[in-house]
Amino acid sequence: MVPPELEEGLPVEKIRDFPLEELLGMAIKAEVGARKFYESLAERIEIQALKDKIVWLAGEEGKHEALLRKMYESMFPGKEVIYPEEHIGPELQPVARELHGAEDILELIRWAIRAEDIAAKFYAEIENLVDTDDKKRLMRYLGDMEMGHYYTLKAEYELLLDWEMYSQMMHVGP
Amino acid sequence: MVPPELEEGLPVEKIRDFPLEELLGMAIKAEVGARKFYESLAERIEIQALKDKIVWLAGEEGKHEALLRKMYESMFPGKEVIYPEEHIGPELQPVARELHGAEDILELIRWAIRAEDIAAKFYAEIENLVDTDDKKRLMRYLGDMEMGHYYTLKAEYELLLDWEMYSQMMHVGP
Repeated sequence: MVPPELEEGLPVEKIRDFPLEELLGMAIKAEVGARKFYESLAERIEIQALKDKIVWLAGEEGKHEALLRKMYESMFPGKEVIYPEEHIGPELQPVARELHGAEDILELIRWAIRAEDIAAKFYAEIENLVDTDDKKRLMRYLGDMEMGHYYTLKAEYELLLDWEMYSQMMHVGP
Repeated sequence: MVPPELEEGLPVEKIRDFPLEELLGMAIKAEVGARKFYESLAERIEIQALKDKIVWLAGEEGKHEALLRKMYESMFPGKEVIYPEEHIGPELQPVARELHGAEDILELIRWAIRAEDIAAKFYAEIENLVDTDDKKRLMRYLGDMEMGHYYTLKAEYELLLDWEMYSQMMHVGP
C-alpha cells in the first residue's frame, strides 16, 4: 500500500524525454519534498537517536537544493525555475498524521530508502545529459550523497526491525 | 605511497582465522582509530563544510564503538576486550602533520574511503560468524553505516577534485 505521504512517480527511463532545464526543476522539487518529508517525520519520532538522524537528512537535502539552484542559475541566468508536474520515483510529502508505533515509521522509512535509491539513479542519468566536467562532477556528488542516505536509512531500518534491540542499543552513551 | 597515518592491514580473507572475540576487539580498535583519525583530520581542515562532515563522521564512529562494546559485554560478560595486533584494511591513525592544500587532504580521504569500504566488508564477514539474529542485525547495521560513510566521502572527494568549484559551491547558504 502506498501511504498518503507518497505518490508513485515517473519511471527513470522517461528522464530523457525532458529537457535539462525541467530535469533540474524536478530535482529541486524532489529535494524540497524530501526535506519537508524528513522535517515532518522527525517531528513525529520520539526516539532521539533516530530523530537526530532524520533532522540531519533534512539538512542535507536543504544543502542539495541550494547547490542545484546555484547550478540552475549558472546555466539559465535570470530564469525562473520550471517545476514540471512529473516526479521521478516516489514523491515524498510531509507526514501530517500521527505515527502509531514502529510499523508506521518503518513503512515511511522503506519509501524514503526507495526514493533515495531512485534519486541516485536520477542524478546518474542527468550526469549523462550535462555537457561539462564540472556539471557532471556535481551530479556525481549529489548521486553519491543520496547513496550515502540510502545506506544510512537502510542501516536504521535494519535495526528498527528489532524494536527492543534498537531502543536498547540506541541508549548507549558516546 | 602510504601516508604516515596509515599502515596496510590484514586482507579480508584472513578474518576467519580469528575467534569472534578477537574480531570484535579488532572492530572496536578500528572504530577508535577511525574516530581519532577523523578528529585530527577535522582539526586540520579549514573549509567549514568539509570540517563539519568530518566531525560528524568522527561522532558516528564513536557511536559504533559504543555499540560494539555493548555487544562484546553481552557476549563475554565481565571480560576485558582483547585487541589483537592485526588490523583489517588500512589502519587510520591520527593526522599529526600539517596539511598543505588539496592534494594532502585528497590523499587522506582516498584512504578513508578505502578503510570504510573494507570495514563494511569486515562487518559482512562477522555477520556470517555470529550465531543469533540480533547480532547479525547489528553487523548489518554497522556495515550499512560504513557504506553510508563510504558514499559520503566519495561524494566529497569527487567535488574536492575541482577545488575552485568546491569552494564556490560550499559557500552557498541553506
